[in-house]
This record gives sequence, structure tokens and C-alpha cells, in this order.
Amino acid sequence: MRKLTVCCYGLEERHRDKLRARAEELGYTPCFHPSYHEAQADLRDSEVILGCEVQALEHAEKCRWFCSSSAGVEGHLASPFLKEDVILTNSSGAYGTTISEHILMVTLMLLRRQMEYTQIVAEHRWERALKVRSIHGSRILLLGTGDIGHETAVRLRAFHPDSIIGVSRTGRADTAFDRVYTTESLDTLLPDTDILVMSLPGGEGTRQIMDARRIALLPKQAMVINVGRGSTIDQEALLLALKEERLAGAALDVFETEPVPAEDPAWDTPNLLITPHCSGNVSLGYTVDRIVDLFLEDLERYTRGEKLAHAVDRTHGY
Amino acid sequence: MRKLTVCCYGLEERHRDKLRARAEELGYTPCFHPSYHEAQADLRDSEVILGCEVQALEHAEKCRWFCSSSAGVEGHLASPFLKEDVILTNSSGAYGTTISEHILMVTLMLLRRQMEYTQIVAEHRWERALKVRSIHGSRILLLGTGDIGHETAVRLRAFHPDSIIGVSRTGRADTAFDRVYTTESLDTLLPDTDILVMSLPGGEGTRQIMDARRIALLPKQAMVINVGRGSTIDQEALLLALKEERLAGAALDVFETEPVPAEDPAWDTPNLLITPHCSGNVSLGYTVDRIVDLFLEDLERYTRGEKLAHAVDRTHGY
Repeated sequence: MRKLTVCCYGLEERHRDKLRARAEELGYTPCFHPSYHEAQADLRDSEVILGCEVQALEHAEKCRWFCSSSAGVEGHLASPFLKEDVILTNSSGAYGTTISEHILMVTLMLLRRQMEYTQIVAEHRWERALKVRSIHGSRILLLGTGDIGHETAVRLRAFHPDSIIGVSRTGRADTAFDRVYTTESLDTLLPDTDILVMSLPGGEGTRQIMDARRIALLPKQAMVINVGRGSTIDQEALLLALKEERLAGAALDVFETEPVPAEDPAWDTPNLLITPHCSGNVSLGYTVDRIVDLFLEDLERYTRGEKLAHAVDRTHGY
Repeated sequence: MRKLTVCCYGLEERHRDKLRARAEELGYTPCFHPSYHEAQADLRDSEVILGCEVQALEHAEKCRWFCSSSAGVEGHLASPFLKEDVILTNSSGAYGTTISEHILMVTLMLLRRQMEYTQIVAEHRWERALKVRSIHGSRILLLGTGDIGHETAVRLRAFHPDSIIGVSRTGRADTAFDRVYTTESLDTLLPDTDILVMSLPGGEGTRQIMDARRIALLPKQAMVINVGRGSTIDQEALLLALKEERLAGAALDVFETEPVPAEDPAWDTPNLLITPHCSGNVSLGYTVDRIVDLFLEDLERYTRGEKLAHAVDRTHGY
């Protein structure tokens, strides 16, 4: 029998049941472990692995296909444990729902000055006339038009923004956006942006794509939201722009260094809403439903010897 | 010339310009004041008044039509200053955009445990695996299907909830909802509700419509959001249900007594997100755009001697 090991946290009984039933139908012997630590013995002779961490591959000599339960896999690609001849897939497509909800939440919190209202209420004060803003009529730029960007655009549309523009490497069209441009157009788009939402993968191709020069192209009322990777923004330049009120606000879920160090100036930057990289964790059962479904779709393809739908392009890193 | 007095806060120059131009075209002499205090001399001989406060009517003997810039006018109806023969209109239709954005924000904050994350970040901790929930798949009940309920349903739909049910006095159908029921069905609907959103007007007809008995019909995982009037919930029963974890959370923007008194137990109730009645204030320019446009539409009707679209039904209070 071909062995299939699942070493992922966040799985509930219904997820294990579904994986077990379909894997057995397709001719695999499935085993389950909460992480790669406990899975060592099974990993040695597993052909297929669904896992959170690339360390699962360290002694997995028989592995032909590793499916990461994450969407971002730049850490996997940089790891010596990932051999050239192992197929790598990711779980892009599982996180759009939960991360787009995070994006809508923090966007509204910034526009409606909820951090200040939280402070007002904490002090039992009754101050209610802070000048707020709306998604209605805002010009929104989504840098990154994958699953997260798409699901965010779909939700934003219901709030009647002035415009929803996408920017991606390829500029591939998507009807959720008014228009999608390639990265080459970024400099001309930034000055007309009220809300910039970034959901880019990590890696060299996106490193500090929002550098100090581009941050300075944004207008004073602009707000920046980043849920992709901390490496895609010059964090120091962003914090300085907030401090000098050259930007109206920012919400960061990802950082150059995580956890954010105790002495990091981010903690005390005005109008910066920090969340601890929680926008896309697997504590939402629906996210795990999607990880399981996407994996099982590829498991059928793999078993039939077909190309996998979620195979990572090692050149672009996603 | 017929005099028209505007005594409203929140107006910007563009609002005054638009009101002035159209009022003059229609044969009125418009005057502007930030509140009724400064407007006394002009109010005495004004035929039409657009105002925030019913006190503007105290000495306005010539007034034939008072348009409130608020949506809720139960205070106006209870006031001795509002004579029987004065037409009262409200600005229902101006607040749907801003209040629906507030509702989406607090709903997501409750589901994603943002109050706890705020505390985690305030302590510079890096804890990121709190179990969260999603609008996706949630069963939503909107008690109140006016402008606010409608705009909220439109936005919620983009998040793929399991269902969006409306409840109103009349049960009038609206395609933004899967179905709209009359208040008679409330008891049977509450046990199947994950998220209850209340946007009801005040007055006797809605007083404590969510009383202790009905609060107890909600399941343990339910969350309650109220942006209408504090009088529509038995606040003490709600706080107790939160304390005893018979409800998962609540977000209140309106209260039985406002400002919430210093010693009120609300301030220290777990899983209660308090905002200081700020969901629908006029600090959003777009809200004032709408107040002005709705008023001018009725001003044309009034001048032609037609029935006003926003006339308040004194029996139902809205």
C-alpha cells in the first residue's frame, strides 16, 4: 500500500474522516499526526505528505509529493529538505474567506477610527463625533490578485467603493476588479489610492515592492493593509510615514520579523493597527475544510498521473 | 419670500451651497445656523425647518414642515414643541451606508475575537491561535428591515452567510433578504440564529422587543448587535446572559441610558463591545450628502403641494 501522512494542526474529526475515506478509496494507507515531530516513523516511507512544516521532509526519502497546508511557501522553497524531484503544492485557495474578512474588518476599523473609540470606551468616556470615513466612494488598490485579493474585491464591491483596481505580476483580468494592471503600472496608480491592500507572497520577486519611494507616492489620506508577507514592505519607511502623518493609517498582520520584537518601534507607532499574524490561521474550521478539499482534488489528479492544480512554480515561488 | 431655516451640525460648504441654490430656485429664502440656539430669530418666521433638534420648534409659530436630520424621531414625537398640524419628516435613508459599515465592522470584530487580540497586542504578546468564526455559513437574523437592515443585508450577502432572514412589523418582502417575516414569527426564528442584528426605531411598539424570555431563546453561540435604540432590548437581561455565557458576544452602540453612566455594569461585561452611539453620526460627509438630497426631494414635493416621501407616521413613530 502507498502511504499518505497528514501532519497538520487544526484538523477536526470531520476532516480526518473525510481524508481517511477518500485516501483509502484511492488506494492509500493514511496516517494522522498533529505535527511532524510525532510523525517521524510514518514519514520515512510516505509517498504523499500533507503538512504544515517543511521539516516533515527531513527524513522522508520516499516522498514524491508534499502538499503544504499554507498558501505561502517561500520558506519551503528555501529549505534544504525540499528535494528537486519532489512535487510541491500549496493550499492557496483555502484562505480567501478568512483573510478577506480580516481585511474588511481592519479596513473598517481604520476608516471608522475604532482604535480611538476603543480607547475612549476603555476610559468610560462618551465622545462620539470623531470624523470617520467610508469604503463608499473610496479608491481601492489591491496589490496581489490571487484568492485573497479576489475574495476581498468581491466583498468590497458590496460597499460601493469608487473603484477597485488590481495589480499583479501578470495583470491577468478578473471581473471582481474594475481593471487589473501589471506591476509596471504601480507608480502611476499609487497617487490615486485611498486604500492599499497587499496580499503578496514572499520571496525575492516581491521583496520591498513597497519601498520608501513608493510609500511616498501614496496620498496623505491613504491607508495601507498588509496580510501577505512582511518582506513586501519597507517596514521602517512605513512606520516613519505614519509617524510623520504622511499616511492616515495602516493595519499590519505580517512583519519583517515575527514575532515582533519587544523593543520594535511598531508597537508604539500612531494609527498602526497590529495583529499577530492571525488573519489566516487555521483556527477557522472552514479554512481547514478548504485545505482538505483542495488536497483531495489534487490527490485524485496525482493518482491518475495528471498535473496537479496547486503545483508551485519554483521560479515565481507560488 | 418663504423662509427656510437649516440648523444642523455636520454641514460642509458644499452642502450649504447645494441647499441654498435649490431653495432659492424653488422660491425660499434660506438661512443657515449650526444649531437651533443661534437660529432663534430666523426660526420665528420660518415655514420650513431642517434641523437636528426638536427644540427648534419651540418658538417657530409659522412652521408648516419640520424635517429631522435624524432617522429616529421618537423624541420629536414625544415633545410638546411638535404641534399636531406640523408635518414631520425624518432622514431615514441617509444612514444605511455608515451604519451598515459599523455593523459589518463589529460583527467581524466579535466573530474574529478582535477585542481579545487588541488586548494581546496592547501587552506586546504574540498569541495568534484564538478560535475564530466567520460570516461564511452563519445564520443571520435582521430585526428591522428599513434602510439600515437593507444595506446591511446587501453587504452581508457578499460574505456568503448560510441565510439572511429579515423580521419587520409588516413582513414586506425585500430581495436583499432570503425571506422577511413579521414580528409574530420572532420566537420561532431566534433559536436558529447565529447573528442577530437589531436596527429598530424607538417608541412603545418596539420597547424591549428583545426581553429576557426572547434573549433566552437565542442559542449559546449567538451574537447580538444593536444600532437602533437601547429601549428595544432588556439591557439588564442581555448583560446577564453575556456574563453567564448564554450568549457568545454582543456589540451595543445604543443603550437604555445615554451616555452610559459611570457605574453601569455594561462597562465591565465580558464579550460586550461598546461604542458610544457613533455608528450613525453625521461626521461622515456622505451621510450629510444623503440628508441634503432626501430633504431637497421632499422640498420639491412640498412646493408642488404633494405628499412628502419621508413623512413620519405618528402611529408607528417612523
